[in-house]
Amino acid sequence: MLRVKKFKSPSALREAIRKGKWQGTTAGCCPGYVQANLMVLPYKHAFHFLLFCQRNPKPCPVLEVLEPGEWEAKHLAPGSDIRKDLPKYRLFWKGRVEEVNDISHLWRDDLVSFLIGCSFTFESGLLKAGIPVRHIEEGKNVPMYITNMPCEPAGPFHGPMVVSMRPVPPKLISKAVQVTSRFPSVHGAPIHVGSPDLLGVSNLDKPDFGDPVTIRDGEIPVFWACGVTPQVALLNAGLEFAITHAPGHMFVTDILDEDLAVF
Amino acid sequence: MLRVKKFKSPSALREAIRKGKWQGTTAGCCPGYVQANLMVLPYKHAFHFLLFCQRNPKPCPVLEVLEPGEWEAKHLAPGSDIRKDLPKYRLFWKGRVEEVNDISHLWRDDLVSFLIGCSFTFESGLLKAGIPVRHIEEGKNVPMYITNMPCEPAGPFHGPMVVSMRPVPPKLISKAVQVTSRFPSVHGAPIHVGSPDLLGVSNLDKPDFGDPVTIRDGEIPVFWACGVTPQVALLNAGLEFAITHAPGHMFVTDILDEDLAVF
Repeated sequence: MLRVKKFKSPSALREAIRKGKWQGTTAGCCPGYVQANLMVLPYKHAFHFLLFCQRNPKPCPVLEVLEPGEWEAKHLAPGSDIRKDLPKYRLFWKGRVEEVNDISHLWRDDLVSFLIGCSFTFESGLLKAGIPVRHIEEGKNVPMYITNMPCEPAGPFHGPMVVSMRPVPPKLISKAVQVTSRFPSVHGAPIHVGSPDLLGVSNLDKPDFGDPVTIRDGEIPVFWACGVTPQVALLNAGLEFAITHAPGHMFVTDILDEDLAVF
Repeated sequence: MLRVKKFKSPSALREAIRKGKWQGTTAGCCPGYVQANLMVLPYKHAFHFLLFCQRNPKPCPVLEVLEPGEWEAKHLAPGSDIRKDLPKYRLFWKGRVEEVNDISHLWRDDLVSFLIGCSFTFESGLLKAGIPVRHIEEGKNVPMYITNMPCEPAGPFHGPMVVSMRPVPPKLISKAVQVTSRFPSVHGAPIHVGSPDLLGVSNLDKPDFGDPVTIRDGEIPVFWACGVTPQVALLNAGLEFAITHAPGHMFVTDILDEDLAVF
């Protein structure tokens, strides 16, 4: 079971993280506020990464891109410092992967930061609409699967689409589609309902990332595009230097989930 | 009045253009098919231009971006050549503006082409829904106005939002919002209804681009974000080299308007 610490606001959480007082995951922290995936790349790869996101908007919905060298996410969280405000980062450098709690000492003027939508956002919408979210009920991470659907490549960035799965009772599937359609900037409507084999997913009990969850009798697996997709594309690009958030250790913004709803 | 020549398909139109047999505007050509704005820039400015579009998605909805040096719009029009398939281009070079019918001889390996949505697309939706489109009725170009709303800048790209205006009877305004909401990739829902003065527009009879149209008694001016916005930002950036379509001389794609509808 995840243990959730309460913070009175996203800025209070970010301050606690910045001071080293919170290094856990952000799952369940500051419910109702948008959390974002972070990708930091050298400027020379920034056009193609942004283009990869533009070509694959469902798995890679861009919430904010910072100018080269900037570290404040002015729109999502004024006063923030993306070099210090996430509890854990993954550093890809010289063929190694390292986890660190602060990236200030690695900062360079040519680094461009991308903040990308995360399905944590629409889950509160699903719950409010009375749709069960199994991995939350079971205190687990959402199960994620690598599919047989290639993303549209851009420059060095390429790879399969990764999806997250939530089991939904048949009578609630329309509502699940409707609710998540309102949030295109955090993956939007499902990309696939039922029949995991057509996605190249042979065993729902063995996710490629996250934890398996219980699928009850009659429930249908529903698949959404997942923010792990750009991470896989980033790894496939074999860049000499890149930084991402560590899984589950997201950037918590000042924006409310409802601010991202389109209608 | 615009005279519209009929072509049996977008590819037949593009072939006629490529062979020099059609150099007129594309207004009214191939109804039902998506037409796009073209912007061609050197690679070194491509990240910031794409970022400008990402930050200002209503006026700058990106339909396709070609890799550096490429001239085929593989998604929108397989087999096309954006260097030859538009009837007229505007060339910004050495502080001069020139109009040309073909840009093949100017092509360079570092040029990146952006195809951006155009409100021609949602106008067929408005007409089908029984909403009058005055400039079409009057055989004119749509009236466009420079507003007092600044776009979010990105690198050298900056400037005001430009809007197009269509007068709508009060009882049809909801429907006009609903119909155009379905087309976020071609500017989407209106950004403003009524009260032009709040946009900094003092005289609807004197548009900054296009032609004035009749506003009948009781009709309300409705404003949509306009694809001229990125052109203004491009000019403001003062690049040493850039190419766009000439106004009204668009890239006609093989995609149906309805293919861009979201629900």
